[in-house]
Amino acid sequence: MKSDGKKDAESGRFAYEGIERALHEKARLGIMTSLMTRPKGLLFGELRQLCSLTDGNLSRHLDVLRDEGLVEIWKGFEGRRPQTLVRLSNSGRARFVKYLQELEKVLQDAMAAKKEAGKAKTDLPPGWVPA
Amino acid sequence: MKSDGKKDAESGRFAYEGIERALHEKARLGIMTSLMTRPKGLLFGELRQLCSLTDGNLSRHLDVLRDEGLVEIWKGFEGRRPQTLVRLSNSGRARFVKYLQELEKVLQDAMAAKKEAGKAKTDLPPGWVPA
Repeated sequence: MKSDGKKDAESGRFAYEGIERALHEKARLGIMTSLMTRPKGLLFGELRQLCSLTDGNLSRHLDVLRDEGLVEIWKGFEGRRPQTLVRLSNSGRARFVKYLQELEKVLQDAMAAKKEAGKAKTDLPPGWVPA
Repeated sequence: MKSDGKKDAESGRFAYEGIERALHEKARLGIMTSLMTRPKGLLFGELRQLCSLTDGNLSRHLDVLRDEGLVEIWKGFEGRRPQTLVRLSNSGRARFVKYLQELEKVLQDAMAAKKEAGKAKTDLPPGWVPA
């Protein structure tokens, strides 16, 4: 009975359900983080440079983020030049903060484990072979 | 000149090149973190339960991790039952620690930005329209 209880408690212990795939993708993580630093938004060209993305890649990722309701995209002019401005939506900011909290849990779990990891790997008992 | 210097310094500021895609994928992140907590390794069934994965999904992700040299997979017996044991390789542990350090940078960047984000979003100047 006791071990069943433990089994239940440990089930899904490392599933990290709060990690939203729309936010977790590497390029989108960079886009969202840079937008967090600039509540007024960033121009398309600024974002492209900050995140080291091509025009095509940035467009594709912004489409995903907008379809998810995470960012707002605005068109306008600076002087005569047409510009695209991207900024976080209110719900996008809230969802990103939640995602970051889950990421922090991963880091805490892994860093706590790192102390254990200092111990040398033990040899396997005889009879175990590489798969 | 001064603004060019700034532009260079900011270029790629949020690119996070150290985020390895093999490790960053959500399920694999859970697998690697749980393996960090257990230097001696985990049995296939334990991993499946800790990470809330199906047999098929866990197998697929373990193939990726093994092909990348991040984990070792061993076959053996516990009593009469054939078992599969998974554990981190030494280089896998080192690469995962590097990855975690990059993840920590993302969190620091985003959390520093969070303070800014408290400020209310300003309205855009007239003439800007949703894209």
